[in-house]
Amino acid sequence: MGSNSDLPTMKDAAEILKNFGVPYEVTIVSAHRTPERMYSFASSAKERGIQVIIAGVGGAAHLPGMVASLTPLPVIGVPIKTSSLSGVDSLLSIVQMPKGIPVATIAIGNAALLAVRMLAVGDADLWDRGIKYQDEMKDTVLVKATKLETEGWERYLNQ
Amino acid sequence: MGSNSDLPTMKDAAEILKNFGVPYEVTIVSAHRTPERMYSFASSAKERGIQVIIAGVGGAAHLPGMVASLTPLPVIGVPIKTSSLSGVDSLLSIVQMPKGIPVATIAIGNAALLAVRMLAVGDADLWDRGIKYQDEMKDTVLVKATKLETEGWERYLNQ
Amino acid sequence: MGSNSDLPTMKDAAEILKNFGVPYEVTIVSAHRTPERMYSFASSAKERGIQVIIAGVGGAAHLPGMVASLTPLPVIGVPIKTSSLSGVDSLLSIVQMPKGIPVATIAIGNAALLAVRMLAVGDADLWDRGIKYQDEMKDTVLVKATKLETEGWERYLNQ
Amino acid sequence: MGSNSDLPTMKDAAEILKNFGVPYEVTIVSAHRTPERMYSFASSAKERGIQVIIAGVGGAAHLPGMVASLTPLPVIGVPIKTSSLSGVDSLLSIVQMPKGIPVATIAIGNAALLAVRMLAVGDADLWDRGIKYQDEMKDTVLVKATKLETEGWERYLNQ
Amino acid sequence: MGSNSDLPTMKDAAEILKNFGVPYEVTIVSAHRTPERMYSFASSAKERGIQVIIAGVGGAAHLPGMVASLTPLPVIGVPIKTSSLSGVDSLLSIVQMPKGIPVATIAIGNAALLAVRMLAVGDADLWDRGIKYQDEMKDTVLVKATKLETEGWERYLNQ
Amino acid sequence: MGSNSDLPTMKDAAEILKNFGVPYEVTIVSAHRTPERMYSFASSAKERGIQVIIAGVGGAAHLPGMVASLTPLPVIGVPIKTSSLSGVDSLLSIVQMPKGIPVATIAIGNAALLAVRMLAVGDADLWDRGIKYQDEMKDTVLVKATKLETEGWERYLNQ
Amino acid sequence: MGSNSDLPTMKDAAEILKNFGVPYEVTIVSAHRTPERMYSFASSAKERGIQVIIAGVGGAAHLPGMVASLTPLPVIGVPIKTSSLSGVDSLLSIVQMPKGIPVATIAIGNAALLAVRMLAVGDADLWDRGIKYQDEMKDTVLVKATKLETEGWERYLNQ
Amino acid sequence: MGSNSDLPTMKDAAEILKNFGVPYEVTIVSAHRTPERMYSFASSAKERGIQVIIAGVGGAAHLPGMVASLTPLPVIGVPIKTSSLSGVDSLLSIVQMPKGIPVATIAIGNAALLAVRMLAVGDADLWDRGIKYQDEMKDTVLVKATKLETEGWERYLNQ
Repeated sequence: MGSNSDLPTMKDAAEILKNFGVPYEVTIVSAHRTPERMYSFASSAKERGIQVIIAGVGGAAHLPGMVASLTPLPVIGVPIKTSSLSGVDSLLSIVQMPKGIPVATIAIGNAALLAVRMLAVGDADLWDRGIKYQDEMKDTVLVKATKLETEGWERYLNQ
Repeated sequence: MGSNSDLPTMKDAAEILKNFGVPYEVTIVSAHRTPERMYSFASSAKERGIQVIIAGVGGAAHLPGMVASLTPLPVIGVPIKTSSLSGVDSLLSIVQMPKGIPVATIAIGNAALLAVRMLAVGDADLWDRGIKYQDEMKDTVLVKATKLETEGWERYLNQ
Repeated sequence: MGSNSDLPTMKDAAEILKNFGVPYEVTIVSAHRTPERMYSFASSAKERGIQVIIAGVGGAAHLPGMVASLTPLPVIGVPIKTSSLSGVDSLLSIVQMPKGIPVATIAIGNAALLAVRMLAVGDADLWDRGIKYQDEMKDTVLVKATKLETEGWERYLNQ
Repeated sequence: MGSNSDLPTMKDAAEILKNFGVPYEVTIVSAHRTPERMYSFASSAKERGIQVIIAGVGGAAHLPGMVASLTPLPVIGVPIKTSSLSGVDSLLSIVQMPKGIPVATIAIGNAALLAVRMLAVGDADLWDRGIKYQDEMKDTVLVKATKLETEGWERYLNQ
Repeated sequence: MGSNSDLPTMKDAAEILKNFGVPYEVTIVSAHRTPERMYSFASSAKERGIQVIIAGVGGAAHLPGMVASLTPLPVIGVPIKTSSLSGVDSLLSIVQMPKGIPVATIAIGNAALLAVRMLAVGDADLWDRGIKYQDEMKDTVLVKATKLETEGWERYLNQ
Repeated sequence: MGSNSDLPTMKDAAEILKNFGVPYEVTIVSAHRTPERMYSFASSAKERGIQVIIAGVGGAAHLPGMVASLTPLPVIGVPIKTSSLSGVDSLLSIVQMPKGIPVATIAIGNAALLAVRMLAVGDADLWDRGIKYQDEMKDTVLVKATKLETEGWERYLNQ
Repeated sequence: MGSNSDLPTMKDAAEILKNFGVPYEVTIVSAHRTPERMYSFASSAKERGIQVIIAGVGGAAHLPGMVASLTPLPVIGVPIKTSSLSGVDSLLSIVQMPKGIPVATIAIGNAALLAVRMLAVGDADLWDRGIKYQDEMKDTVLVKATKLETEGWERYLNQ
Repeated sequence: MGSNSDLPTMKDAAEILKNFGVPYEVTIVSAHRTPERMYSFASSAKERGIQVIIAGVGGAAHLPGMVASLTPLPVIGVPIKTSSLSGVDSLLSIVQMPKGIPVATIAIGNAALLAVRMLAVGDADLWDRGIKYQDEMKDTVLVKATKLETEGWERYLNQ
């Protein structure tokens, strides 16, 4: 992430990876404040065994794009909402990358799940956990739907 | 893709995959006009050997999200600019997916390159081709920069 | 609705239908989390006697469009404001449907009233209740206007 | 429609209604230039046998909302793109109606289809034509998809 | 104004008119809920001695435009910020009026001042009060500037 | 106007004033390129007999606001669409004036008509011409509507 | 700054200049409320020894542009977020200046730093302080990154 | 500049610098395609005698921000309009830089003039040329204004 102030947002990604049993590392790399660190972080990522990079950052979000220009690993860019301009600035900073430098833009709640899907293609265990995750989401909705239909919306709301 | 009118846009992705030697299939699946086809396409994708799905579509771009809800494969959503509203509508339709259903949003020029990066993590040959691709981009810029610096911008422009 | 978190918003529609004496059902169908349920819900709606479907959902609001592609019943799509991007994303996700798949976009306060108007065309009783509803709105404004003109704005405000 | 300059856009709706065998009338009613005409048009619509009103208009699109305030018939508002501001102005002028005055907002290509769906609920013949319309859309896509898969995208594009 | 909920906003205009000694009336006229009242209000305004109409309204703000189509009096439209979409919807609903129906769009704080300026052109007393108003604004700024320069910004802030 | 490049747009206003028999002057005053000229133009406007100022300008449209700060005459600001950002920038530059400095924002087609309305309040002849103008607009629409209804939309379009 | 209400925002700039040892003055100049003061302030700035002007202002932010038209000194315009429209209005009011009148647009946190950079080009001491400032930012990030990596994100968050 | 396709836009800056007699160099540095070149270019700029850097770039415009993070020289960022999203993306990518890394955002027509103003503070000759430039702009407007007032707008337009 670009700053430690992004941690409360990015911890969701860490938790999902933990729940899926995917090893991960969490650190701070600022494109603008520590450009050399970003350079060495990105350039050495593959040889340190990293397979996917999730880069979350707000404002003029340069981190995901710069990292993607320094390594051929897949990079997931997460626009983090800053106080002004409701996050559209970060979204556009990531999604409008020049041709040749792909960055996958995604909302924070789904960044780690996208990484899991990428890795699950070659990992049967992870694939099964992905199937199970989708089934559990489905069941959660079905339980609520049944409850709502059985009780009626007025009782459901008054709980 | 959601419609055959998207083909002139999506062919860039096909060409890149071809150049990288990545096998691919190109077809039309409309979330709204052929919902059953979308269902069977997405549900059977994994067993047909598909590892990544690139879904390009304009307007209220529902295809990438619906496909991502029907398979745990990684899905790359490509907003295609329609005549009105300059593509922001498609961009938002893809990027604002609910938690639990990840879709990687990316501009068309980079969709296939993102797929290549995903696959290259487990494929040494593809990785090398990715490195080469970045080197060639770099060289192209350096040649132009040298030419511009040597000739001066006035001669460069008048060619 | 797409999620039980939409219920506090969607209950307005339920209350209006109740007040007009129009039978209705309220349930949760998630396009992304329960795609099969959405499929069976929409496909069977007509034979279960449903005449209009109101689909409220936030974010990349796919539910109304997908339902409209699975049944020829009229579908009313209600964009629900989510925390980010002030609801424009949902609005565009619904209003930019491809040609051939109509979805009536409307703000939540008016969704049930639009359904009532659709049904009232062939139902003299409901038509009369619609006329009465408009008269009551008018009377409410006239009472306030008279009060404001009689008392003056300063006393009116200080109550 | 609000002006005869809207006719090239609104004729699509007329054609669809004609194809579905739904009787319709086409005329010009300007909220701002002919407010009295709008008043008498809307107030008398029901007794002249009209069941749905499609109001297409650009700019500060007041026609659909004003008509909906003058009759309890269902009103479909169609934002027509004017030269400036890419139609967002008309879209917002229609979709942000105050509570109590419902207007169904929809893009022009789908306005007549929404009207057909509203009427088809109580008209078995029209319902069947609606089903047939959806089947034909599906078949058109399937034919194209088969062609594309059989020929490959390169030959398909070069025709 | 279009609703009594606009009164807390519109009272600013009433106060300014009061301070300038300009006679005024304050009432509620809803374009959508009381279209007949709007019609008679606007049509009779001139003969009741009204010289300028200030119409404040939120959402799909139709009131100023409809009033301007029913009288040749100058109409000042005030977009009132509603909860969603930060008032841009009302702004566009007013500012994009069709050719031939002028509505002066202005923020609420300035609506009454614009009316005062219109009237002051033919009223020497009001003109002088307008000059005095501008002088007072100027003096207020100069006093603050002098204080800030004398005390320094740190002491100025700590008061 | 702020630049001679605005003349093709601003001539509409000149033509309308000419048609209404309202004396006017047309000149170029640039807030940024000729600030002193703007100062003397605005300060002396009243004594030169000017009753309303129409200021048309594009980009960061400062002219109307600055003029309004230098004279208590009513000022009408016309945002002129520049190549980038579709005129929203000019619109906001004019409409968001600080409290105390009113500028009436209006589209170019209506700027002169607003000036006419302001002046007509104290000028019975001009008032009558304003009534006649509205009647002619109405008649133009009614003629077109009758033609469209008589001929049908297909013949109407094919002319 | 354009108003004393901008001081809580602009004090950041004052503090940074103080920390860098750059002499500065802080005052209020309103383009609209004190146009003459703005004129004399800008015209005399150079001879009073001023080398850079930072102009912060909200709404229809005319101050930076007008100042830049009255002096050839470099002007830094700071859009200040006002309650409505999230500051985009001020941003566009500043950034869309006509050709020939440059204003450097920048967010408030960086305005003074930009001024420092301008001055540091010809001031070796200031240059060294600029280098040191960047080094300190870097060190701050590195300390946090080390802490986060050492403790893990869960402990880091729970402090 | 970030790409040779930006040259037709950036040549305006080169021409202005040439006219003012300010030595300059023009080259291509791509943040994403040549990150190492950007690094060495920015780091060595000061010692090569560069005093201001103008960085023009489109899309997710990372170049100005990254350069500003690698040198304490003043950096002027010029958003270049790309085909989609009308340049707002580049504008926001530059203007929303994090605190500590200032980039002066400006439209292309004014970038070189801003650089000239920065340099003119310490260069009496350049200052005089800046004064002369402003005088010439003023004269150009005055000549046009005189011509327009003398001839009248109708003859002026017909030339």
